[in-house]
Amino acid sequence: MFLVVGSLVALLGCSVPSVLSTYAPTWDSLDSRPLPGWYDESKVGIFLHWGVFSVPSFGAQSSATAGEWFWWYWRGQQQKEFVQFMNSSYPPDFKYSDFAPMWKAELWDPDAWAQLFADSGARYVVLTSKHHEGFTLWPSKGSWNWNAMDTGPHRDLVGELATAVRKQPSLHFGLYHSLFEWFNPIYLNDKKNGFSTNQFVADKTGPELHEIINQYEPELIWSDGDWEASDTYWNSTNFLAWLYNDSPVKDTVVVNDRWGKGVSCKHGGYYTCQDRYNPGHLIDHKWENAMTLDKGSWGFCRTSPLSNYLSIEQLINEIVVTVSCGGNILINVGPTADGRIEPIFQERLLQMGAWLKTNGAAIYGSHPWTAQNDSVSGDVWYTLSSDKTTVYAISLSWPASHQLLLGSVTTMPKTVTLVGYEGALQFAKGPSAGIAITLPHLDTNDLQWAWVFALSS
Amino acid sequence: MFLVVGSLVALLGCSVPSVLSTYAPTWDSLDSRPLPGWYDESKVGIFLHWGVFSVPSFGAQSSATAGEWFWWYWRGQQQKEFVQFMNSSYPPDFKYSDFAPMWKAELWDPDAWAQLFADSGARYVVLTSKHHEGFTLWPSKGSWNWNAMDTGPHRDLVGELATAVRKQPSLHFGLYHSLFEWFNPIYLNDKKNGFSTNQFVADKTGPELHEIINQYEPELIWSDGDWEASDTYWNSTNFLAWLYNDSPVKDTVVVNDRWGKGVSCKHGGYYTCQDRYNPGHLIDHKWENAMTLDKGSWGFCRTSPLSNYLSIEQLINEIVVTVSCGGNILINVGPTADGRIEPIFQERLLQMGAWLKTNGAAIYGSHPWTAQNDSVSGDVWYTLSSDKTTVYAISLSWPASHQLLLGSVTTMPKTVTLVGYEGALQFAKGPSAGIAITLPHLDTNDLQWAWVFALSS
Amino acid sequence: MFLVVGSLVALLGCSVPSVLSTYAPTWDSLDSRPLPGWYDESKVGIFLHWGVFSVPSFGAQSSATAGEWFWWYWRGQQQKEFVQFMNSSYPPDFKYSDFAPMWKAELWDPDAWAQLFADSGARYVVLTSKHHEGFTLWPSKGSWNWNAMDTGPHRDLVGELATAVRKQPSLHFGLYHSLFEWFNPIYLNDKKNGFSTNQFVADKTGPELHEIINQYEPELIWSDGDWEASDTYWNSTNFLAWLYNDSPVKDTVVVNDRWGKGVSCKHGGYYTCQDRYNPGHLIDHKWENAMTLDKGSWGFCRTSPLSNYLSIEQLINEIVVTVSCGGNILINVGPTADGRIEPIFQERLLQMGAWLKTNGAAIYGSHPWTAQNDSVSGDVWYTLSSDKTTVYAISLSWPASHQLLLGSVTTMPKTVTLVGYEGALQFAKGPSAGIAITLPHLDTNDLQWAWVFALSS
Amino acid sequence: MFLVVGSLVALLGCSVPSVLSTYAPTWDSLDSRPLPGWYDESKVGIFLHWGVFSVPSFGAQSSATAGEWFWWYWRGQQQKEFVQFMNSSYPPDFKYSDFAPMWKAELWDPDAWAQLFADSGARYVVLTSKHHEGFTLWPSKGSWNWNAMDTGPHRDLVGELATAVRKQPSLHFGLYHSLFEWFNPIYLNDKKNGFSTNQFVADKTGPELHEIINQYEPELIWSDGDWEASDTYWNSTNFLAWLYNDSPVKDTVVVNDRWGKGVSCKHGGYYTCQDRYNPGHLIDHKWENAMTLDKGSWGFCRTSPLSNYLSIEQLINEIVVTVSCGGNILINVGPTADGRIEPIFQERLLQMGAWLKTNGAAIYGSHPWTAQNDSVSGDVWYTLSSDKTTVYAISLSWPASHQLLLGSVTTMPKTVTLVGYEGALQFAKGPSAGIAITLPHLDTNDLQWAWVFALSS
Repeated sequence: MFLVVGSLVALLGCSVPSVLSTYAPTWDSLDSRPLPGWYDESKVGIFLHWGVFSVPSFGAQSSATAGEWFWWYWRGQQQKEFVQFMNSSYPPDFKYSDFAPMWKAELWDPDAWAQLFADSGARYVVLTSKHHEGFTLWPSKGSWNWNAMDTGPHRDLVGELATAVRKQPSLHFGLYHSLFEWFNPIYLNDKKNGFSTNQFVADKTGPELHEIINQYEPELIWSDGDWEASDTYWNSTNFLAWLYNDSPVKDTVVVNDRWGKGVSCKHGGYYTCQDRYNPGHLIDHKWENAMTLDKGSWGFCRTSPLSNYLSIEQLINEIVVTVSCGGNILINVGPTADGRIEPIFQERLLQMGAWLKTNGAAIYGSHPWTAQNDSVSGDVWYTLSSDKTTVYAISLSWPASHQLLLGSVTTMPKTVTLVGYEGALQFAKGPSAGIAITLPHLDTNDLQWAWVFALSS
Repeated sequence: MFLVVGSLVALLGCSVPSVLSTYAPTWDSLDSRPLPGWYDESKVGIFLHWGVFSVPSFGAQSSATAGEWFWWYWRGQQQKEFVQFMNSSYPPDFKYSDFAPMWKAELWDPDAWAQLFADSGARYVVLTSKHHEGFTLWPSKGSWNWNAMDTGPHRDLVGELATAVRKQPSLHFGLYHSLFEWFNPIYLNDKKNGFSTNQFVADKTGPELHEIINQYEPELIWSDGDWEASDTYWNSTNFLAWLYNDSPVKDTVVVNDRWGKGVSCKHGGYYTCQDRYNPGHLIDHKWENAMTLDKGSWGFCRTSPLSNYLSIEQLINEIVVTVSCGGNILINVGPTADGRIEPIFQERLLQMGAWLKTNGAAIYGSHPWTAQNDSVSGDVWYTLSSDKTTVYAISLSWPASHQLLLGSVTTMPKTVTLVGYEGALQFAKGPSAGIAITLPHLDTNDLQWAWVFALSS
Repeated sequence: MFLVVGSLVALLGCSVPSVLSTYAPTWDSLDSRPLPGWYDESKVGIFLHWGVFSVPSFGAQSSATAGEWFWWYWRGQQQKEFVQFMNSSYPPDFKYSDFAPMWKAELWDPDAWAQLFADSGARYVVLTSKHHEGFTLWPSKGSWNWNAMDTGPHRDLVGELATAVRKQPSLHFGLYHSLFEWFNPIYLNDKKNGFSTNQFVADKTGPELHEIINQYEPELIWSDGDWEASDTYWNSTNFLAWLYNDSPVKDTVVVNDRWGKGVSCKHGGYYTCQDRYNPGHLIDHKWENAMTLDKGSWGFCRTSPLSNYLSIEQLINEIVVTVSCGGNILINVGPTADGRIEPIFQERLLQMGAWLKTNGAAIYGSHPWTAQNDSVSGDVWYTLSSDKTTVYAISLSWPASHQLLLGSVTTMPKTVTLVGYEGALQFAKGPSAGIAITLPHLDTNDLQWAWVFALSS
Repeated sequence: MFLVVGSLVALLGCSVPSVLSTYAPTWDSLDSRPLPGWYDESKVGIFLHWGVFSVPSFGAQSSATAGEWFWWYWRGQQQKEFVQFMNSSYPPDFKYSDFAPMWKAELWDPDAWAQLFADSGARYVVLTSKHHEGFTLWPSKGSWNWNAMDTGPHRDLVGELATAVRKQPSLHFGLYHSLFEWFNPIYLNDKKNGFSTNQFVADKTGPELHEIINQYEPELIWSDGDWEASDTYWNSTNFLAWLYNDSPVKDTVVVNDRWGKGVSCKHGGYYTCQDRYNPGHLIDHKWENAMTLDKGSWGFCRTSPLSNYLSIEQLINEIVVTVSCGGNILINVGPTADGRIEPIFQERLLQMGAWLKTNGAAIYGSHPWTAQNDSVSGDVWYTLSSDKTTVYAISLSWPASHQLLLGSVTTMPKTVTLVGYEGALQFAKGPSAGIAITLPHLDTNDLQWAWVFALSS
């Protein structure tokens, strides 16, 4: 039997029962809440950045700037490429808000999206309910005429996607929410006051967090935009205490860690630390690698060439390393303003779905093993099956010379198989340590991108 | 010398010095404040209804519905002609907010407007800072992306007009403001709660009234949209106490009477009672006849034919009767979405200016006389000169048979002249009572529309 | 009985029957065709300049440039104000053709227009079927996707107006047509070839003239845009021979004189010579004063202030002088892009209608008299009634001192009346020559703008 | 040495020198012209369908209807899905021509396109200069205001792409051109006349073919839209005689076979017969398989899911079979209205480029061999190297059991190699006939999709 670090299970909270006690609005108390189990079991989620920025859908290649920050790069920083793009295509007095009526979502089929996400093998979906631009994707009372029902799509994007995603039994539904808004004058007024006033939180952010939770009951809140002000300004601990104690999703909701300056990577639910966080080693707190298929952008970026997109090999690599090190991966896709997931995203998601269909046992519900990255074969990463009977050695390349050396496997397994290939493989003690597996001569190209070797005890 | 009802002067407050005491937030106290003198002396003002409604600029001729209520008629009442207009010209999911980016004001020249208003002989200008649609014509903090700076014109319409109007020495600047907003979800929520909550007033209406007064220092606040809720809900007396005691315009500001259900025609500053109020007899409180040059609409209405517009004779008639009975007249003009005052409005305003240039002594600073409407010649209305030495008999028609009979003049004047005509007129005791004036044989058409006879004592 | 220059009647062609012989394609032959009588009898027409230029509807006040030449001023001459206007409001690569889809005519009611024109007292209406921009207001085969049916209004503007105008018994229908097109590459190619090629006439202008005549049967063709090339290039005499001999309107059609360089004021139907032609004396060929209510523009110009518009006095003046000197007057009105005749135009047209209703006998069907402008009273112009029994002395001002001196009337009339005033006027031999008429003391303002004295023999 | 059918070389015209004699306007004479050699050597081209249809970019999945026929399906056939799409998103009077100004091509970088096409391994590029909609992608004199310079992109798309493509030494440039236009009224008039008139050809089609050839000197004319009328109506033989004898591209130009009803697959240059023509056996005339990466559409279709796109395996399959049978393949890609080649297309093209980089010797300049499809291994297709020394057996699958049996190879080769794999392969006589090749145990995934075995003699 393989050894597992016992305390890790507790940390990941996979099997700890829900506690009846109520939480106090302090980090000590809030941090003591076990993470609902569905999250760690899911491993793979889809992140969707959709907003008014999906209309210009533009990024500067030179600075690898992201499409969803368009407003800021254009009007805040006044980056040259953004200013030139606007000057060359739009009237002189065009403002960002003029993009909103152009967001039509006229081809949007939320059920087709949900089917795609299910087919991708992801287990949860997180939509930007509101990004830093402040435009809400649901008809928020406090964002009159600056939301997707009043303007542009004229639909409740949050509500419709929630319904569609929940028709897929394999999927959970979550919402991203930005605390701050770059240009909201009420926020800027609080900021000008050194955050000694908090009208913005009282009138805008607070009520809208309650709105989305009461109306859409998301199982995940992906908070963002917290970094300019303290958790006290954002009233974060009070909000989380309500969320954990009294909200309609108190038993299942998962949150991340972006709840105020200095909070990230320290408090809250799982850790995200920084964007595209992927430490490459085991972390003693549940974490998530929120990353993008388009390397340069979260919002869909028309100007991204194919070379900006991760290849399927790179994506599988990212998944494997992340899961091996105890993380979840949240894979971002930027829908278009007319409501489509571009074919290149479909291709990657369906390739991923095909790989997970064959190799999912090594991912879903898996645990980190004692070793993460093999000591000899650097392309091999380990997971442990949910029932802890099998170690998965996942190789990101097809080993040369028809032999795979695993230095970190110190106990000889009973059997070794290649997932997706019929029959047991031969193996022996390795030259110096570990084991050496003899690879089969494959007839087909069906197994691709990463190869999973199951070592049963 | 002619007799004047002494108490009336006090009521009209023309010459009462500003009081130093502070006002309590009660109607008793607030109503005791004398009206700053500039208002009664001005007599004639220009009202401007400009807003997102200026884009569709549409009214139904059948029901004489006004252009500025477009949103309500279309989406609230769903009047057939409005629904048909939208269905025939716009995409199926078009919403009212989609009109906002089409409001460009690209030809707007606020200085030219102010010059026109000065040339019209008006003495004050009142602009809709926000109508029931909730769109603010200034960059209001509380109406982010639903204001003229963020959306559409991309200019501070209130600020620019204030500046332009103040360059004209003859003009005062005022602002219309609607308390309620038809479709604001926060207002609707308070309403649903029977106005037991007042989040809308606390977060929206209250702050924005302070904003416009502190930023633009209007000398007149024309409140509206009060009728669904009490003055308590609107927090009106507290606001007015601040306005009268502490605001930057406390010494000069004038307000009207629309501050809550049941308040109009009873409390506040001058009375407006209902739209186009013109009682035709003397009222013992200063009042204003707010009326429109386009009989059917306050906002510019593209569908109004010429027959909808008052002729210059009708306009002069309205002015004369109003001023004779102690009222001010606020003449409404609807600018176009591109920022123009249509030539037909220019024509009426400049005709009025020509008439007032000749006959202004009978209007500006005048007082009501003992009689308003002559007892024999029904087309004759009286005013008393500001120095109370001259009675003006203003005839709205050129009397037949070259003779004007004035039944209400019981004391023989010293001299009688026709304003604008050189030389004294002959007059004698009238056949039964009053006096009979012999009219001259005019050579020119210069005197038109209404003829002013000056009876000096 | 009053003397009339006999040959003039023939020249004006009022009562010459249609000749059966056919016309040769030479000016000698074509010029010999008598003008169909309806035209001279009509005297007053309405000219309509409507086109893509009605969308920008912009003119530069500094240079009094006309709105309908927008494209040329902007892109041809690159006048500063036009370039600035476009730069400040439109994207950098905006082209003139991008205005076409914005021309919606969504409020257009051709029957209401026709009613207005009938009420104005005009007897014919001439619409720009195509201006120099080349955009046809009917679905021309040769102007695919650059016509009002395919683009913009999506209606057959020519056809619908023809139908509406013909419902008015008093109105005739005519069409303006520009031979050249500023920027048509096929025309420019012919021009580059020194007009030695004529592909443009063969493929475009020729077929479209046949199209409008065969499809809409206009009774007047107002040709324009001829000045860069000879009548030979335009194939004008052949076209006119077909028009006079074989077209469906051969018996009633009237044309003007703009058929090639050097032709205007020499050949064709009636003479227009130059725009706003009004020689102020008798001309021995039927002519027309084509002029504008907006002094600076034929197309509607949003930037024209009221001072650009003729007053009703100026308009009546223009009519009277023109008709007195044997001309017709074609009064231009520029409709808006949304399909309206602005109220200021309605006002002038209805004022004219009121004047003509009273005084039309001095205008319609009238003949020039022996004198045109009185030798003593310079504001008096003469016409002769259609039955030649009455001379009309039309005074453009109300004479001072209650007396009108007519120096050119050498024969004492039997009676003198003021049209619209009951009762005969007293008159006597004038102080040196002519007659002196004693004016009545008018009670009303009903007679305005110009006063017609009827001198019966 | 391998046997080749000698006459085939002549038919394909690969090495026949250009003839000096002139061609008569008869099919006999025109068909005798040898095909310029560059075409057959190129094998692989890129087809681009770009037009106004790229704006709606919509197809009905139910009927697999193509995006570039949008106008016809919507307004001609009035297919339900197209009508519903338009009704749900556009105003009631929206017409197809209203899409044109929305075609902005604002992100278009022709050099980046040309680089992509070069990297794809294609050797020629064919752009729709004008599709059935009649909109020309160059500023055609005869299509004023219905071309890409006057409207929409405001650029000369043909000219800019020609320049960019010619910067790539490996690429030839060609133009697609539709003879007919669905809704051109002049064409419809000829059609109504049973094509007894030909104004459309004389004024429109004829001149524009000369324009594109004289201005852009394309080396390929891909004619289309010929099927409703005879070659006589289209004046095809006269045009081709001019093209072959006198045009600036007479020595190098290649044309296809769509020049009139009944002409296709019988006369002209190479044969296309029908769309996606791929007979699967040798044809005794040079032919081309014009096919699409999006199975359902030539124009970019936003509504096509990933399943509509050919996989790289399917694409390689199509190339191999086509070239093996003597055809060229023209692979269609639909650019977007904003000027992009979608990443999914980039992926396929670059995958193809990678495959051709390794395996191009079996494709470019190759000849059909005696056999096309192997008699035993159905996934194997043959080509003969340009110097005729090597037979290429291209296997579309990786053979099972590590052995490839080639039934059609009756002469033992000297050596056998796997292209891209170092070292010679073992082979022997096959079990009954042909040869059996022993496959290597590959370490990498570098060889994919189709494997080329080189049999040298």
